[in-house]
Amino acid sequence: MNDTLRQARAGNPRLGQQLVFLSEIDKLKLVRRRTPVTDNSRMENSAEHTWHAIVCAMVLREHMPQRVDLLRSLQMLAIHDIVEIDAGDTFAYDAEAQETKGEREERAAARLFGLLPDDQAVEIRRLWHEFEAMQTPESRLAHAVDRLQALLLNSESGGGSWRSGEVTRPKVEARMGPVVAALPSLAPFVEDVIDAFTRAGVIRRG
Amino acid sequence: MNDTLRQARAGNPRLGQQLVFLSEIDKLKLVRRRTPVTDNSRMENSAEHTWHAIVCAMVLREHMPQRVDLLRSLQMLAIHDIVEIDAGDTFAYDAEAQETKGEREERAAARLFGLLPDDQAVEIRRLWHEFEAMQTPESRLAHAVDRLQALLLNSESGGGSWRSGEVTRPKVEARMGPVVAALPSLAPFVEDVIDAFTRAGVIRRG
Repeated sequence: MNDTLRQARAGNPRLGQQLVFLSEIDKLKLVRRRTPVTDNSRMENSAEHTWHAIVCAMVLREHMPQRVDLLRSLQMLAIHDIVEIDAGDTFAYDAEAQETKGEREERAAARLFGLLPDDQAVEIRRLWHEFEAMQTPESRLAHAVDRLQALLLNSESGGGSWRSGEVTRPKVEARMGPVVAALPSLAPFVEDVIDAFTRAGVIRRG
Repeated sequence: MNDTLRQARAGNPRLGQQLVFLSEIDKLKLVRRRTPVTDNSRMENSAEHTWHAIVCAMVLREHMPQRVDLLRSLQMLAIHDIVEIDAGDTFAYDAEAQETKGEREERAAARLFGLLPDDQAVEIRRLWHEFEAMQTPESRLAHAVDRLQALLLNSESGGGSWRSGEVTRPKVEARMGPVVAALPSLAPFVEDVIDAFTRAGVIRRG
């Protein structure tokens, strides 16, 4: 934190806390995911991934049969990966890392959202817990586009994170379950992609 | 566009258009800005910048005296830089490039948003024009956080895009005008940052 942020903190403590938080979350741009950008030149990071998922939600929400509060979904998406600044990106197909993910991310949420003024910290942690619980229509849309975006990039980049050699068809289908549950008209597309990459030997049959 | 997207286009043309658009906009991650990420390791790209501006809007909108439809602001921000895929990022302090920006970006908007189904293309172009016109409270909040985010990164990274040697205090103040107009309680912070970097000789006195 540089001097000017420190000064802002003294002159207007609430604004100071907000600016410290907004400056700290810049680090999400340095968290690397397992999914490449579509031209395969590098792995994508969690900040740009989040932007992409937000536009996916805007464009695809019409495929969700239930009514959904789009503002809540977009806000949830905007903050859903911030915990990765401390907890790292946990690879979706790494069962061991998935086991410790909850605890690591809870600690990260306490520290990072705790930089904000109390009322905003409470509100954003609530949004993040709602996302994680995947019970409301808003969080189901958010999860659906979060996972669909990864499938789209893997598909466009020739396999992406599926190329680790460890990924089986049943695991990919389980991962995409929330996509087809929330956005049923996307089921044929998702199935076609999984078929194509299983036939090509990128995804193992199981 | 790979085979599976082509197939989706045949089986469900509307969904196919949406997926082609969502795949094409991945290229925004390759558009480099003049502002470095806070650890100075690289320049930021327009996709991750957009995400950062969206969180700024969520956290700072309480500083806007007028009522604002936050959903509209967030959607506007989410799409405001997509035209840069074709038109490039135009440096804020490059007067010559600013002159041709409008025409280049209109062509880009026609091609890129035109990938979507007609009704969505019309809706998103309208959002983008509203952003550009900077007349509504929603677009003024969006511009304010768009510019404030750059100031925050320049400040945290020790000068960032101001270090080109061409940037004068009156130009930075003009650029930050929409920030202090929309979010008046941020004026002292903005002024402190500009003061500090003028004293340090990074921003020229004019």
